[in-house]
Amino acid sequence: MDTATAPALLYEQIAQHYLGAIRSGALQPGARMPSVRTLTQLHSVSLSTALQACRWLEDQGWLEARPRAGYYVRRPQRMALPPSSEPPARIDATQYLGIHERVSDFIARCELHPVRVNFANAYGSPDAYPAAALTRAATHVLRQHPDLLVTPVPPHGDAGFRSVLARRALDAGMRLTPDDIVVTHGCTEAMNLALRAVTQPGDMVAVESPTFFGLLQILQSLGLRSIEIPTSPQTGISVEALSLALQTQPDIRAVVVVPHFQNPLGSVMPDANKAALAALCAQHDVALIEDDTYAALGDDATPLRALKSWDDHGAIIHCASLHKILAPGMRLGWISGGRWHARIRMLKYAQSRPNDTLAQRSVADYLGSAAYDRHLARLRRLLRTRREQVAEAIATHFPAGTRLTVPHGGMLLWLQLPPLRRNATVFETALREGVRIAPGHIFSNSERYNDYIRLNSSIPFDTQAVSALQRLAEIVRSQLA
Amino acid sequence: MDTATAPALLYEQIAQHYLGAIRSGALQPGARMPSVRTLTQLHSVSLSTALQACRWLEDQGWLEARPRAGYYVRRPQRMALPPSSEPPARIDATQYLGIHERVSDFIARCELHPVRVNFANAYGSPDAYPAAALTRAATHVLRQHPDLLVTPVPPHGDAGFRSVLARRALDAGMRLTPDDIVVTHGCTEAMNLALRAVTQPGDMVAVESPTFFGLLQILQSLGLRSIEIPTSPQTGISVEALSLALQTQPDIRAVVVVPHFQNPLGSVMPDANKAALAALCAQHDVALIEDDTYAALGDDATPLRALKSWDDHGAIIHCASLHKILAPGMRLGWISGGRWHARIRMLKYAQSRPNDTLAQRSVADYLGSAAYDRHLARLRRLLRTRREQVAEAIATHFPAGTRLTVPHGGMLLWLQLPPLRRNATVFETALREGVRIAPGHIFSNSERYNDYIRLNSSIPFDTQAVSALQRLAEIVRSQLA
Repeated sequence: MDTATAPALLYEQIAQHYLGAIRSGALQPGARMPSVRTLTQLHSVSLSTALQACRWLEDQGWLEARPRAGYYVRRPQRMALPPSSEPPARIDATQYLGIHERVSDFIARCELHPVRVNFANAYGSPDAYPAAALTRAATHVLRQHPDLLVTPVPPHGDAGFRSVLARRALDAGMRLTPDDIVVTHGCTEAMNLALRAVTQPGDMVAVESPTFFGLLQILQSLGLRSIEIPTSPQTGISVEALSLALQTQPDIRAVVVVPHFQNPLGSVMPDANKAALAALCAQHDVALIEDDTYAALGDDATPLRALKSWDDHGAIIHCASLHKILAPGMRLGWISGGRWHARIRMLKYAQSRPNDTLAQRSVADYLGSAAYDRHLARLRRLLRTRREQVAEAIATHFPAGTRLTVPHGGMLLWLQLPPLRRNATVFETALREGVRIAPGHIFSNSERYNDYIRLNSSIPFDTQAVSALQRLAEIVRSQLA
Repeated sequence: MDTATAPALLYEQIAQHYLGAIRSGALQPGARMPSVRTLTQLHSVSLSTALQACRWLEDQGWLEARPRAGYYVRRPQRMALPPSSEPPARIDATQYLGIHERVSDFIARCELHPVRVNFANAYGSPDAYPAAALTRAATHVLRQHPDLLVTPVPPHGDAGFRSVLARRALDAGMRLTPDDIVVTHGCTEAMNLALRAVTQPGDMVAVESPTFFGLLQILQSLGLRSIEIPTSPQTGISVEALSLALQTQPDIRAVVVVPHFQNPLGSVMPDANKAALAALCAQHDVALIEDDTYAALGDDATPLRALKSWDDHGAIIHCASLHKILAPGMRLGWISGGRWHARIRMLKYAQSRPNDTLAQRSVADYLGSAAYDRHLARLRRLLRTRREQVAEAIATHFPAGTRLTVPHGGMLLWLQLPPLRRNATVFETALREGVRIAPGHIFSNSERYNDYIRLNSSIPFDTQAVSALQRLAEIVRSQLA
């Protein structure tokens, strides 16, 4: 509101300003109106003008005066209720130019509809995680460190948390010191930092095909081009195909790989392939970025060796996180940057400063305890049981021609549907009915996966989930080509 | 460790792997060694080889066997203690290419020396914030929402937190709905997102001179060029100088301004200047990015009008945060992106996903209460008292020729020293003695502020602080040109 240019009376301008705030919900029923004294200062007006504005709002039924307490926004009368706001008719795709319109459109669309059954995310269901233990741990930290919330955060992350991460990394065959680790806001920020550290805008990055849509967004938003490398549902990225790409595409500066329980395929690279991949990247002097977020989720408890355990030249960047395996509500990730580590530290500082301490310290003790191992054992069993239940329901209800490789870990199923008239219709129809899925076309820049969908198989297998799967199968049938 | 290439015996390789981990601190004294069974799986060796590796480490005094519990890392014997590690002799500046080497070097250098008295940061001292109330609020949220830590975070930030931010924004003359706000990891992430939303690499951004060094890092790390606009210690950025720059530099795409208690100057823009600045940017169709983190810290409690309150075209992006005014340990910031808001939402999603809920919900109730206003009143008094104490100590001890405009709010003093032989020596000498200051040359890409330093005046004014200021004055004297 610019009081210098508007033609209305001063008190009217002020009243309209606050009326707009009430109508938009910024000032909600029951909220206190700024005091008359505050209004005089804020709008540089006299006491009588400020009072006149409040009285006008009171007369119109928007405010009520309470003795000695000032003005408050009135509870709305029934007849004054505005109609519910409609969701925007269409999404403005021009806003997403350069961020990956296809993925942005999917995410924005999801928010327009209330969700009843969510098969679209890549987290385990909340009941799969140790809520009570984490809450206890956080409460304990708050009690032990009364100044934690008012003390500036230390660089690179909490020392105790990094220490236990370094110790746990041994199980994956990596030898890291706490100083080799920078804590990040989830694996997403770690991937951003890794790519920013090793590339320049315009560079090319080799990715798995299909790959998780978040990566496609990151690449495009950083001005990077991607080249999609064929990836097997069983053994992960094809090292042979990558080798060919590296020979023919000199612009490739980095390779991004999810070696274990790849998203969306669920594939696991055999150790021989990991060794060959590491050697290939070293030979071509290309950075190898490993997203190892799902490693702990195998049906078999045998620890899987991280790609970084084959790192002889500091050329492998290891990224991982806890939101899939321990705490979806605490976005804790980390990065170990090899020869680019100092650069990554500084990019993290420039991008978002170090993480808050509370979450890190809360999980540090838990991660070092046997309770964590017991949690993982339970989580693995739960994911396996539900995965098999969902896979069986799919086999029962989906039309002939549906294909699925059931992975040996994780919570994701990558479903190949029979040829459809329009894959997007399956997603859109389900979404309108409150059933959220991830449509195949967001996992690639090509049209290769238009007949695929990704389903999260970790949600409780109850009647609601079963009927959602049945309904999904019906929608698919209705779209058969 | 690649078992395929090393010539040593298998058990030796495994033992060396874990020995390295113990020496580096990744496996600390008292930690449990992975079980023999785990070792067989992890390294694909026989039970006897795994056992041989453990026994070798035991024989060498690194492990101890505990009956039925496996092997543990031994507490070090006195004579086995390795010498303390030395800080790296020099910092590898090539790592920081494109991030702003000058600033990166300052930050990395600070970490090499333990700090006794810290005048370098831009937070209030922890005793200036309501630690107990925040801890209580966080504990309460954890109790009320037992599944909070295991539930995926909602998009754009907690609805209740955004709601109270929208209400508080009214005091600054802005009319925002909760949906106009995206919660970010501090103001730093908000600034990154704002700049990414409105610029392309290679574009030019107008900034205040001097400006806070974090901004210079952000600009360079995003491939942006900056043009420094003269800024008054009293009235902030010169609108006239900016006008001239906009006429002569068609590449300018955005202007970044801290209108209230600018960092490092402490200046406050008069309302007329803010209106003129908003009009100027609208006229040139240039995005105006407002960093309004310090607005609540004025000695005078009168609310200050945000630049965004003059926004008629959605062309002003408002960024702010709570870590200076409420909770340095909770990195809560937010952004209101005007016409770029949908784009900023998606960039935030691609860069780090939405923020954790706990911190947001913890402060939401507090922000809406009268306790918050009481905290601000106390904080303002405390900052004013200490600022005047430090300013007086400077006047007493620093050499003639020292200049200082004492601001009317905030915690920063921007000190112009008499001409020095080498400003960097003041910073380096103080740093080695445990007194951390922010040297002037990191607040600009020019050499214009080489004789300035920025001091945080909010630390408790005790004998340690006074003697640090006296020592600083001595060091300055020793460097007089």
